[in-house]
Amino acid sequence: MTAETPQAQVEEFDLIIIGAGSGNSIPSPMLADRRIAIVDDGERFGGTCLNVGCIPTKMFVRPADLARELRTGEHLGLRNAHVDLDWAAVRDRVFGRIDPISSGGEQYRATGEPNISLVREQVKFVAEHELITASGRRLRANNIVIAGGSRPRELPALPFGERVITNAEALRLESLPDRMVVIGGGAVACEFAAVFDAFGVAVEQLVRSTPLRGVDEELSEAYAAAAGWPMRLGVTVESATETESGLRLELSDGTELETDLVLAAAGRIPNTDTLDTYAGGFDHHADGRLVVDVYQRVLRGGVPADGIWALGDISSEHQLKHVANQDARIVAANLVASAAGEPLEANTLGPVPMAVFTSPEVASFGDSLADAESKGYDAFAVRHNYGWTAWGWALDDDTSFCKIVVERGSGALLGAQIIGPDAAILVQTLVQAASFGQTVRGLARGQYWPHPAATEIVENALLKAEEILDQDEAMAEAGE
Amino acid sequence: MTAETPQAQVEEFDLIIIGAGSGNSIPSPMLADRRIAIVDDGERFGGTCLNVGCIPTKMFVRPADLARELRTGEHLGLRNAHVDLDWAAVRDRVFGRIDPISSGGEQYRATGEPNISLVREQVKFVAEHELITASGRRLRANNIVIAGGSRPRELPALPFGERVITNAEALRLESLPDRMVVIGGGAVACEFAAVFDAFGVAVEQLVRSTPLRGVDEELSEAYAAAAGWPMRLGVTVESATETESGLRLELSDGTELETDLVLAAAGRIPNTDTLDTYAGGFDHHADGRLVVDVYQRVLRGGVPADGIWALGDISSEHQLKHVANQDARIVAANLVASAAGEPLEANTLGPVPMAVFTSPEVASFGDSLADAESKGYDAFAVRHNYGWTAWGWALDDDTSFCKIVVERGSGALLGAQIIGPDAAILVQTLVQAASFGQTVRGLARGQYWPHPAATEIVENALLKAEEILDQDEAMAEAGE
Repeated sequence: MTAETPQAQVEEFDLIIIGAGSGNSIPSPMLADRRIAIVDDGERFGGTCLNVGCIPTKMFVRPADLARELRTGEHLGLRNAHVDLDWAAVRDRVFGRIDPISSGGEQYRATGEPNISLVREQVKFVAEHELITASGRRLRANNIVIAGGSRPRELPALPFGERVITNAEALRLESLPDRMVVIGGGAVACEFAAVFDAFGVAVEQLVRSTPLRGVDEELSEAYAAAAGWPMRLGVTVESATETESGLRLELSDGTELETDLVLAAAGRIPNTDTLDTYAGGFDHHADGRLVVDVYQRVLRGGVPADGIWALGDISSEHQLKHVANQDARIVAANLVASAAGEPLEANTLGPVPMAVFTSPEVASFGDSLADAESKGYDAFAVRHNYGWTAWGWALDDDTSFCKIVVERGSGALLGAQIIGPDAAILVQTLVQAASFGQTVRGLARGQYWPHPAATEIVENALLKAEEILDQDEAMAEAGE
Repeated sequence: MTAETPQAQVEEFDLIIIGAGSGNSIPSPMLADRRIAIVDDGERFGGTCLNVGCIPTKMFVRPADLARELRTGEHLGLRNAHVDLDWAAVRDRVFGRIDPISSGGEQYRATGEPNISLVREQVKFVAEHELITASGRRLRANNIVIAGGSRPRELPALPFGERVITNAEALRLESLPDRMVVIGGGAVACEFAAVFDAFGVAVEQLVRSTPLRGVDEELSEAYAAAAGWPMRLGVTVESATETESGLRLELSDGTELETDLVLAAAGRIPNTDTLDTYAGGFDHHADGRLVVDVYQRVLRGGVPADGIWALGDISSEHQLKHVANQDARIVAANLVASAAGEPLEANTLGPVPMAVFTSPEVASFGDSLADAESKGYDAFAVRHNYGWTAWGWALDDDTSFCKIVVERGSGALLGAQIIGPDAAILVQTLVQAASFGQTVRGLARGQYWPHPAATEIVENALLKAEEILDQDEAMAEAGE
């Protein structure tokens, strides 16, 4: 800190990082000469993914999946199947593993490095390069990384409280309710509904439109049909009334619903309001996200604000940890490059896959056929069912499938949508091909696929796509 | 058939295909003008994979895996778990699905196409282009495709019989024995041992050396340690004695073992002896396989025999269905090309992955580090444990891992070995990269990997490999 700054009470840093999720990965030996403040006001240090998001949920998903597969395994020859899931034991295993990582990380940031200060307070922007904390500390830096993330959206009809909780509280419930209503049709809602259903809660999921509708319409329908708990589509909660034993929800379709607990997972909103990034003068999307350029620089009046960067949910159209991590790598590189006067690195990695660890599992990347067509592509989609492969016979599966969306002519892989066991893994060969500019031409036959692994589902979808390209070519030649 | 041939009783074809496994995929519209004989003497039509191999075994593996995960799931919060597996129900589901495919395929070949004749007899070569059947029919063709496959090796101390069976009988057992000894350490033995163990049979596996030793030594050790049934390593059966209740095996380590049933899975031998390919004058490897060139032409005195082709287990160093299928595609293409006087297609696809659907699951391709070094590569291996990723936390896994073998300097992917859940799927992105000439350079960071999917295990192994390449480069630069 320099004593001669105009405002002596302002604490000066070279770099302030707001948010210790993916933002926490930015400090590195390359930045060892910077005075860095890391700001995080989360109840637990380390961000959403580690504490209340991707990682702990999957630790609940795994026993939930096992129990579900067992209970629905009669068709596979399973008999007299019984299993109980011990909520408290799973929860304690999860947080017995995660909380020490969080507190260890916090401890290290607090005391581990001479150049790093940890600020465990809410902050707000007061100017482009200046923040004020809840306790009144003023922090200033030429470089600020805004990695403040997002939080669950609160519905007007359902203010958060004892009986209306978010993912954060849901994971640490002292005991399970008998009945739970899950609000939402996105990844969070679908994952939690599947988990609590398997743990024995009478779950009902309320979806404003259709579940996972961003992925693909056909997949959305298949998901709704295959999910093993009641799902009401096209309804919203109009109002809620406390009753003696719980909460009564009045729905938009005129019906009512009694429940013990509501898990509100109707989307997430960026934390730009609580950080008051508006006071920094930055540009915002209509949904509240910060506008960034391809170098992850925050825009201000349409041009990059000097030394202001953003990453992750607070700026990205994708609320995905792997996207936030990639953003963070770009920011870290560009903090170094900009100081050295070197060219910045552009964040052009793509396409972006996503996975929803619900039941059935879902994964996708890129465009659905409808998306591709609306973007003007001359495209087609092919579908291969799990049940048309030997692995699908092993699963005795008749609901799962893989779709791939391909540009006519070029054969470019525009997207893929998979619903079924191991979707999150199966999507990767397609992501890899698309990322490195490989088309579907020769992709299936240019490599071996071990028989009879689930990957044959992808292989066969690719072969089908190539057949269509071949037919197109043959027709074009015949027409000449 | 031409009446004026020197031997009037010889039936003339344009093409004889011996073996209706992968060989059965060769007839196509491109060969509609050829008189084709398909020869198969299997009890059921369609080859090993469909009837007694890859496909039915996986249909047993799936319920076995579910039951095992349940019974060992206490650490994941599963309580009061119980499940029985209904052997008869699984077996009947499997063959209720597969047998109609086999008989439908046979029916179609027998009567479905005017240019195709089906010969359901054992055949032997009597000359380069001539065969004799068990009933004395003589068949001749200018083109012969030898796709006769392989069969389980019979051990001198354990002749096949009521109490010494192979995979073929094992899958159709009327009822399960109390005790079973599985002989062998390869894919077949390891898959069956896992299945019967899960179905409640007291399995003991006897392995001459170490299990799955061709994959990687470290993986072999991890597999032996993690397998949930007793495994005796380094022992062979010296003799067997019928007892009142079963069979007593005298082992090479001086001990004895009582069992009800022995499953002999100590390797498979090519069917060149029963086909007497030696009478055709063809070249054979020391292990009995036919020698083929890169166009799948069988050699005779070191040069390609005219119009004689082979594919699959009878000629390949890989006893894998996906390899046999690829061989068959090459043969089919070259039957057409050779008739048209066009250049033949070389079978250069690689590398070859393999998967063993045992417990834990195993997959690999290419070289282990020891293999690579013995071939003269300057290589290194990196290992990433499942337990070091978020997905591994979800599995609560502490035994599974992914190894990749990389050439120093070039960064070429020489091989990979994976042991753990979904190994057969996880290996594919690495296979794809290696098949299309991608090195580890940029492979992890050139694509998104959905968090926290199991693919992060592969991603992290790749990142580690790149770090070593970077260190090598830095050291080389420092040394200059």
